[in-house]
Amino acid sequence: MMNEGMNSLDYEARVDRLREKMEKEGIGLAILYERSNVRYLAGWRQNTTSFSILFITQDGLVHMVPKLDKKAVENECWIDPSDIYEIPDNPMKKYKDIIGEEYNSIDNIGIESETIFNSRLKNIKENIGCRFSDVQPLIDSLRIIKSPAEQELIRGGALAISEVMTEIIDAAEIGMKEKDLTAKAKMLMDLKGGETYSFEPFAMSGKNSWLPHRTSTDKKFKKSELILVDMGLIWQGYCTDITRTFTVGELSKKQIDFFDAAYEAQKEAKKKVRPGVKAKEVHERAVEVFEEYGLSDYFPHLTGHGLGYDIHEAPIIDEKQEIELKPGMVVTVEPGVYKEGIGGARVEDMLLVTERGHEELTKTERKLI
Amino acid sequence: MMNEGMNSLDYEARVDRLREKMEKEGIGLAILYERSNVRYLAGWRQNTTSFSILFITQDGLVHMVPKLDKKAVENECWIDPSDIYEIPDNPMKKYKDIIGEEYNSIDNIGIESETIFNSRLKNIKENIGCRFSDVQPLIDSLRIIKSPAEQELIRGGALAISEVMTEIIDAAEIGMKEKDLTAKAKMLMDLKGGETYSFEPFAMSGKNSWLPHRTSTDKKFKKSELILVDMGLIWQGYCTDITRTFTVGELSKKQIDFFDAAYEAQKEAKKKVRPGVKAKEVHERAVEVFEEYGLSDYFPHLTGHGLGYDIHEAPIIDEKQEIELKPGMVVTVEPGVYKEGIGGARVEDMLLVTERGHEELTKTERKLI
Repeated sequence: MMNEGMNSLDYEARVDRLREKMEKEGIGLAILYERSNVRYLAGWRQNTTSFSILFITQDGLVHMVPKLDKKAVENECWIDPSDIYEIPDNPMKKYKDIIGEEYNSIDNIGIESETIFNSRLKNIKENIGCRFSDVQPLIDSLRIIKSPAEQELIRGGALAISEVMTEIIDAAEIGMKEKDLTAKAKMLMDLKGGETYSFEPFAMSGKNSWLPHRTSTDKKFKKSELILVDMGLIWQGYCTDITRTFTVGELSKKQIDFFDAAYEAQKEAKKKVRPGVKAKEVHERAVEVFEEYGLSDYFPHLTGHGLGYDIHEAPIIDEKQEIELKPGMVVTVEPGVYKEGIGGARVEDMLLVTERGHEELTKTERKLI
Repeated sequence: MMNEGMNSLDYEARVDRLREKMEKEGIGLAILYERSNVRYLAGWRQNTTSFSILFITQDGLVHMVPKLDKKAVENECWIDPSDIYEIPDNPMKKYKDIIGEEYNSIDNIGIESETIFNSRLKNIKENIGCRFSDVQPLIDSLRIIKSPAEQELIRGGALAISEVMTEIIDAAEIGMKEKDLTAKAKMLMDLKGGETYSFEPFAMSGKNSWLPHRTSTDKKFKKSELILVDMGLIWQGYCTDITRTFTVGELSKKQIDFFDAAYEAQKEAKKKVRPGVKAKEVHERAVEVFEEYGLSDYFPHLTGHGLGYDIHEAPIIDEKQEIELKPGMVVTVEPGVYKEGIGGARVEDMLLVTERGHEELTKTERKLI
């Protein structure tokens, strides 16, 4: 039932690596609801209105899915159809029935501590047990390093989004609405073969861009303003992300200098991306450059983030992160500045950390066009 | 700072109605995270990667938003800018500081019990209090009845999605991929003026449709198969939803009879939609029709759902729902059947419950085309 692409990702090996980590931490059972965790381990691409529950023990795997999706999951997911169940009114009671005597050996339960819904945790407490550990850090430690097969996939996605960005910059013209440019971006992402978008893409221009205003509006592009487009497509499950700043007319010296600061901060921060460097050092370098330009007060966000089955995942690149970069991590670098009367400027690329430094995955021209 | 459209929805009056209900239930403070609740009450359209927290007391309103969005929210949201704060590391400690002495009068805290994240609830418990009530039913009781201004908006959205569906049925042809048809659907939804999509739209055809498989694939449309397209656009925040079943070739007598069952079940279920009828009675009528066709085993889902700022909201229409329909409710009616060797068939419309019956909001031809 597996196609080649699925096979090369080897979902079962991922589950086995998670089991090793669970054993070390004394976690007997992991109960997972997060869509990206489910996709990483079960390989199921859900409809956006759906959800599923994955139960993992040393010897067992149970996947509960909505009745409506059950047959599709049996056909598409690597997990044995006999381990796929319909989500009942009380999923935890059902799970206890399924595992039978194995239940007695389960002590510590691994949950997604940050994001699990209160009502779901209650259902676990009332039926299975009350000793919990956070299992998300164990899954993150797997997901943060992309395998060669994943790197190859992400490389393809980054190339596709780079091509879309190049077309979008060409398509922008005076009088066009922000909304219409992002509608075109979506269509191009679809045509390139994206599953869907990493997030709702947006264009922000002129008076909208300094806030910053992260949704496209009916505002039309004018001569003499900075236009910023941020978007990403999902490529066989993997999120991509790119930002470019450009114009459709003439810019003032002030605007050009402003863009140069963002361009320079990104260029310098990228130079820091290599194994052994702490994530916060990449951020600090961007801040330093903005300080030189006297613009550090106008840089209100992080410098970058990891991405994979989630658009924002480990490692985060901001002032707090002590984590060291390692080969196989994929991160964005995207320092930006936003100032009233000038606008917003940001350049964002996806970088793969390699043994010796990094590989730039997104390719669109970065200089002001 | 308000435009006409925002004003006509009167967010402040919604907050006041919620306050009345909170007072009756003895809820001193409501803490809200759900995007659709925040949009309903604060009127802020968030980027998909963003989130915010709304705190409501009898006299106060505090809106915490990400640093990056703060200026945009101050410009776009009806709430006084002095009540808008940046989300800090510990939002609940910050809130306690903001309200000062008012804190002493807060006893019972209203939370979104079902969906609140465990970690967020913990943050509330550790800083503010431990007596909770579920506030979602109070908000649902407001959201379930659409005001005349909301009805007018939803009517516009339903008309727009009807037009998109008509174009999509025309555009489908033999040899076209499911994915390419939904890419076209997305583009048309954007061009019609949708903010984005209610959910990832999908087309399912032939061997994919009986599972049912709720994502579009690379499968090409063939002669002699049923094609089902389900989609919705978001119209100024309000979700729309429509499904049609059609073909690009010739169908067998078996397939035509199968479609007729779905068509008939929907037609009969719709006749039930009027004030005073219980939601479950609408579902039961659909089941009855499928029973007459000997197909009730192949109807794996609900008959319909309410929709508004969420694609699935109250009232749900399935076998369990005792709730009575009332004027101002907007629901879908969409019974469907899926059978191996034949395919899937479903017709879905949006209905507004009126004083005397209902108004059909979606207009696309329903008969097999």
